[in-house]
Amino acid sequence: MSLIVQKYGGSSLATTENIKYVAKKIVDRKKQKNKLVVVVSAMGKTTDNLIKMAEEVHHCPPEKEMDILLSTGEMVSVAMLCMAIEEMGEAAEGFVGHCAGIRTDNFHTKARIQTIEPSRIISELKKESIIVLAGFQGISPDNDITTLGRGGSDLTAVAISAAIKADLCEIYTDVKGIYTTDPHLLPNARLIRELSYEELLEMSSAGARVMFSRAVEFAKKYNVPFVVKSTFAEKGEGTMVKEILLKEGADVSAAALDEKQAKLTIFRVPDRPGISSRIFSSLGKANINVDVIVQSVSKEKYADISFTVNISEAEKAFSIIKEVAKEINAGNTSCDMEVAKLTIIGIGMMHHAGIAGKMFSALADAGVNIEMISTSETKISCIVKRSEGKKGLKAVHREFLEK
Amino acid sequence: MSLIVQKYGGSSLATTENIKYVAKKIVDRKKQKNKLVVVVSAMGKTTDNLIKMAEEVHHCPPEKEMDILLSTGEMVSVAMLCMAIEEMGEAAEGFVGHCAGIRTDNFHTKARIQTIEPSRIISELKKESIIVLAGFQGISPDNDITTLGRGGSDLTAVAISAAIKADLCEIYTDVKGIYTTDPHLLPNARLIRELSYEELLEMSSAGARVMFSRAVEFAKKYNVPFVVKSTFAEKGEGTMVKEILLKEGADVSAAALDEKQAKLTIFRVPDRPGISSRIFSSLGKANINVDVIVQSVSKEKYADISFTVNISEAEKAFSIIKEVAKEINAGNTSCDMEVAKLTIIGIGMMHHAGIAGKMFSALADAGVNIEMISTSETKISCIVKRSEGKKGLKAVHREFLEK
Repeated sequence: MSLIVQKYGGSSLATTENIKYVAKKIVDRKKQKNKLVVVVSAMGKTTDNLIKMAEEVHHCPPEKEMDILLSTGEMVSVAMLCMAIEEMGEAAEGFVGHCAGIRTDNFHTKARIQTIEPSRIISELKKESIIVLAGFQGISPDNDITTLGRGGSDLTAVAISAAIKADLCEIYTDVKGIYTTDPHLLPNARLIRELSYEELLEMSSAGARVMFSRAVEFAKKYNVPFVVKSTFAEKGEGTMVKEILLKEGADVSAAALDEKQAKLTIFRVPDRPGISSRIFSSLGKANINVDVIVQSVSKEKYADISFTVNISEAEKAFSIIKEVAKEINAGNTSCDMEVAKLTIIGIGMMHHAGIAGKMFSALADAGVNIEMISTSETKISCIVKRSEGKKGLKAVHREFLEK
Repeated sequence: MSLIVQKYGGSSLATTENIKYVAKKIVDRKKQKNKLVVVVSAMGKTTDNLIKMAEEVHHCPPEKEMDILLSTGEMVSVAMLCMAIEEMGEAAEGFVGHCAGIRTDNFHTKARIQTIEPSRIISELKKESIIVLAGFQGISPDNDITTLGRGGSDLTAVAISAAIKADLCEIYTDVKGIYTTDPHLLPNARLIRELSYEELLEMSSAGARVMFSRAVEFAKKYNVPFVVKSTFAEKGEGTMVKEILLKEGADVSAAALDEKQAKLTIFRVPDRPGISSRIFSSLGKANINVDVIVQSVSKEKYADISFTVNISEAEKAFSIIKEVAKEINAGNTSCDMEVAKLTIIGIGMMHHAGIAGKMFSALADAGVNIEMISTSETKISCIVKRSEGKKGLKAVHREFLEK
């Protein structure tokens, strides 16, 4: 007998027909002598619709009330799925809000889980009930409802898996698993069988829309293996995400293209201690996330500093660096809104000589010019012209992932 | 400064435009130096839609899950109304589920309020916040969400008024108040200015769709005066419902017609002790509510017994009395599905001689035949042919309520 946590996303629960389908899947799994805890998101587009409705009565909806509003979406899913399971003759027990035992901090709409008190869930599991748990929500120290922010239901699933020491955590979604690159960008994309937490984290920060990082970080911290698979495909193993220390065979696991980047440059920055810190702390104070940073080799005590940000923050960042450039007696500044970030990801890839070289050659052969390079233990990113991004992705995917 | 409890029903909150209108009304009232607790129902047809959705996944939705599902409707209203109030610059504090302090018993979908712990509401009131409270819901001894059944939000409003010792409880609805009879049946119906709890209770049991009895019974028990008035009418005093021991002037306050009645008769019932009890306890065991009962004067140790039930229960009742009639050696049985109950209501009317006689004359003059009569301290009911019900209502309304 295994203790399994499953999570179903909004698209898996969009209609009452979908709910019945999911209930059948759960009941079949239960009959294979498993104990089940099922975490649910809000049905279909419920959350988006609630946000839209809130914006009709408030220009900037207050967060505490937003949490009351949004938490209802998952409550509806819990009730509906319990009913559908019970209609099939199995016992189900719904857990929402206070009853679920998920305590968070006070940061409404993006609360962080503090503790999980799973005793009531564990005692219901002993009674052979299928547990259906509202994802995405918790309770603040003031006993108010909180929500966990984007991807919150994945986080709930991973956190409850850790708390009840589940044998497996299954994240059900509308795709078959995690692909070597976004199949919408590149039809050649292949399903990945196994991936390490680190690689998945790098994929997210490389712009792949896979899973939100918080759930993966939590899984890594508490070593919760999980599998990402399709709700509606009858077969298919999906992608297993777990701790992998060393990988045999292929060095590169995935490639990603982030087309929402802008590149900013300050020219002729005086090469003195503390100068970069002054630039980037000004950006940090304005809550701007800086991505790739490259400093050119110093020439005559001056260097050029380039960095990328999300295009939505580019204008704000540009006006900040124009100010800072004056203060530190640097030269001109520039802002290029037409760049993209192309990344290859693989655990321990930096230990394998020649991967970077292979990437740069593949890009050169495809006629793609590299403007900036950034590397880490598990990834190599190149900033290229946005118009050349897809061509570059195709080239590196062919080089590393289609053999 | 007054402490006012207001309750807004679903039709008052059906759209975001309605919510903004209600928020404006509340904020204006607050600015007149009042402290406000606002109880809300679910928006528009939300509850009906949720029930329909539940019935799509379960042939008879389980009650505990139903309560999780239905409670979300009021939560959405709380969040939306708080936001709309805050957009107008006033502080609002939403209370749902566990935070509201409304403890009930364990009877899901028709829970009864056990205790109210209003300390958190009272402390927020001191901070000058407008309190917005989810109607219709409470928390069971097991800490699960319960709902209070039909008319539950009215009950929440009355109960919280008693708990915080409000100066006034205002029930806002889509009509201007309580009328002398249903204006849809009789356009001559007049708005009633003042009514006693007992009269309103009799009106409900006489078939008038005014307010559900449980809220009125609670108001009577704890002596909570309340006013029923229109959300959207800018002016109008509505109807004040309170303790009235003696009334000057008019003896009759209202008239009601219940067209959903069926009359059942057992002929030639042996006139022995215990026989009626045998009949009515059989009906009671089958959960059938018997309304008017009349036993004819005994002739040669036999009497005929007639009673009315709601037509939805007539068939079931008829098959029961056919059985019982055999067992007790009575004669034939009959079931007349084509009757209506016509009632006049007034506090202490039985002390005023001649009211019954006046009612019977008015009906006779209109050519309406009376089939059964039942009287109590505060009402006289006549069972008539359904086809003559409206004519009879018009006649008694003219006699007592149009002068």
